[in-house]
Amino acid sequence: MRGTMALNKKPVTGMRDILPAEMQLRDYCIGVIKDTYGKFGFTSIETPCVESIGNLSSKQGGENEKLIFKILKRGEKLNLETAQEEADLADGGLRYDLTVPLARFYANHANDLPSPFKALQIGNVWRADRPQKGRYRQFMQCDIDILGEPSNLAEIELILATTTTLGRLGFRGFQVRINERRILKAMAAYSGFPEDFYDTVFIILDKMDKIGAEGVARELEESGFSKESVEKYMALFSGLEQGTADGIAWLTERLGDFLEPEIGQNLREIIDGVKATGSSDFEIVFDPTLVRGMSYYTGTIFEIVMPGLGVSCAGGGRYDKMIGRFTGNDVPACGFSIGFERIILLLQESGFTIPGQPKKIAYLVEKGVAGQRLCEVIAGAQRARQDGSQVLVARMNKNKKFQKEQLTKEGYEEFVEFYRDPLK
Amino acid sequence: MRGTMALNKKPVTGMRDILPAEMQLRDYCIGVIKDTYGKFGFTSIETPCVESIGNLSSKQGGENEKLIFKILKRGEKLNLETAQEEADLADGGLRYDLTVPLARFYANHANDLPSPFKALQIGNVWRADRPQKGRYRQFMQCDIDILGEPSNLAEIELILATTTTLGRLGFRGFQVRINERRILKAMAAYSGFPEDFYDTVFIILDKMDKIGAEGVARELEESGFSKESVEKYMALFSGLEQGTADGIAWLTERLGDFLEPEIGQNLREIIDGVKATGSSDFEIVFDPTLVRGMSYYTGTIFEIVMPGLGVSCAGGGRYDKMIGRFTGNDVPACGFSIGFERIILLLQESGFTIPGQPKKIAYLVEKGVAGQRLCEVIAGAQRARQDGSQVLVARMNKNKKFQKEQLTKEGYEEFVEFYRDPLK
Repeated sequence: MRGTMALNKKPVTGMRDILPAEMQLRDYCIGVIKDTYGKFGFTSIETPCVESIGNLSSKQGGENEKLIFKILKRGEKLNLETAQEEADLADGGLRYDLTVPLARFYANHANDLPSPFKALQIGNVWRADRPQKGRYRQFMQCDIDILGEPSNLAEIELILATTTTLGRLGFRGFQVRINERRILKAMAAYSGFPEDFYDTVFIILDKMDKIGAEGVARELEESGFSKESVEKYMALFSGLEQGTADGIAWLTERLGDFLEPEIGQNLREIIDGVKATGSSDFEIVFDPTLVRGMSYYTGTIFEIVMPGLGVSCAGGGRYDKMIGRFTGNDVPACGFSIGFERIILLLQESGFTIPGQPKKIAYLVEKGVAGQRLCEVIAGAQRARQDGSQVLVARMNKNKKFQKEQLTKEGYEEFVEFYRDPLK
Repeated sequence: MRGTMALNKKPVTGMRDILPAEMQLRDYCIGVIKDTYGKFGFTSIETPCVESIGNLSSKQGGENEKLIFKILKRGEKLNLETAQEEADLADGGLRYDLTVPLARFYANHANDLPSPFKALQIGNVWRADRPQKGRYRQFMQCDIDILGEPSNLAEIELILATTTTLGRLGFRGFQVRINERRILKAMAAYSGFPEDFYDTVFIILDKMDKIGAEGVARELEESGFSKESVEKYMALFSGLEQGTADGIAWLTERLGDFLEPEIGQNLREIIDGVKATGSSDFEIVFDPTLVRGMSYYTGTIFEIVMPGLGVSCAGGGRYDKMIGRFTGNDVPACGFSIGFERIILLLQESGFTIPGQPKKIAYLVEKGVAGQRLCEVIAGAQRARQDGSQVLVARMNKNKKFQKEQLTKEGYEEFVEFYRDPLK
């Protein structure tokens, strides 16, 4: 019987509902993020959650392109009889990041946007990853990007805006790690690795945190790279480790013609510029082992790591070649993305209390309170709200004690009771 | 050549990008909405944008169920060779409203939620409507719902919360129209219309605004209803029109056994309760011609109309039978939805100015300002931000005059210029 068909109470596989306590924390964080980034001149934009399959499959998204939720064509466009493969069935998909949509947005609206354009995006993205604890198929990303700024002011502003935001959310003692794709490449070139295999080298280098220098050297050799190259390469890292005061200067000298001095100097200036504010919330360090996965990065790359946590909770870099894919003309671009879901998890685990909450008052109204008496209750609640309190007006349950206990758990701290007989 | 393949700059058909000026207005409105509803004890929740096709096609969504964006099955679940129809290809879809997901959410989490549960949802929904001016296939909805409150406190709180919110957004002189599905039915029964055709009667009644009483009478007769029923029905409306001070009392008397007196009294109490706050921003009126389309409504229905605008910009009502579709046990439920996109349009057209904006200062930094001098600029900007200003740090363009004109358009009111030579 249609009318009584049972419906499915659970969210779809790999996605989740968000309950009030977590939503309150998320809303608070979004408020701090928007306010802080706003102070740096970033302006919010939004793009549709759906993008054309062509844009999503343009090789900008790396492995994420395998995880697209595709949207079925509609009406006449969907022809099941002639459809041979998946590509014939879908013309759109849910976005897997906010960077490809931003590049499309900028290409579409560049004439209406200031230069440089400082964009803030907070929005959901979708990836059909294998469901696992703490990772969901819908999750929120929070990106800032500066488009049209070729100088290192972009990097400095992005890093300061993000570290200031994290500081305002109560994080302390975190580390900004920064590197340059062109330094990574110069180190590989200097060591004699073949250019076509740089990415293989970097994927192994990226494991330095976990397997150490010896592990990296072993894996490189096992991958078939020459012993000579591997030794030369590892000597660079051990040289850097031996406590040179300025690793960038040391590398610039050592790499000689393989690295233009301006590249090192540019990176030095970013680090000094970020340090200029004198914040004690974080430190910024040159990390020659930092790789960052996405192939679209062309210059600086950076990430933020919390103390005691191996994983990064924000990452970004310069990608000067992506917008040209849409317009034919390259536009300098640099972005920083906060791992919003990870930040929320960290705050939840730390027992974070949201500041500046209004006083919470519950008006409990006995069944039968009506007419003029009810009107007085309602008008009183409205006045208390105008004075800044949060007021819940609810019918009094039979078990009033239990009801008050529940409301206390929700944070209600004052109770006002209204009875049919005002003398009660 | 893959690397130079041109990508599509436009959003997908029927969806749109949102630029900074509109986003600022949207963010402001969302802030006011969350703050005001929060004061009434509504707590935010969120559900995934994707729901199972079974839930979306459960006949709760009316015509919207024909407009679902369906999501292609993945991996082994997708079998093109055995697929006979659309249903074999898709197992999920993008939600077309926030009410069906709320009912599922409540069914899933009732044990972890207070009773009554006051939910606020602000989120995107998707409908594959024919694209037309001002209507998009992705748009934002903003719903409040009270679940588990059988008494008319629910209606009073919903209407007060929504009118207070609209008032805080600067709207004045608007009208809340309220009716009862059971009064609608009693009027149809009293007039002798056959019960199976009530919905046909109501669809015609709904046009009263446009075609007037005569037009409604003519269409009813043309639809084959008896002249006697139509006359009896229209006499009710003309009787109400003839300036009875209390239409609800007049109807209750006239309809006799067709309408339980408690139903009219309940409606009266809601109107009086809402009036109790004495707000002059709006009026609330009993409107016996109000129908509201969705078939799931079981009691009160209401909407808000702005002065001079025929269309409603908020609507809602009581739907006590929906949650039972998920759980087997009915739960009293009542909701009110603001037409968020319409509100934004109205504010844009009225030239609304967002209050409380920070002072906007642009630091223009000549190319070549570097080292210690750049550090001073950055530290200065950071201090001004901590003092509450919005500070943009940007490289000075060759055409400084044009750059300043552009920034002035964006609202920057103060410019500070930094040169390589500090004496310049």
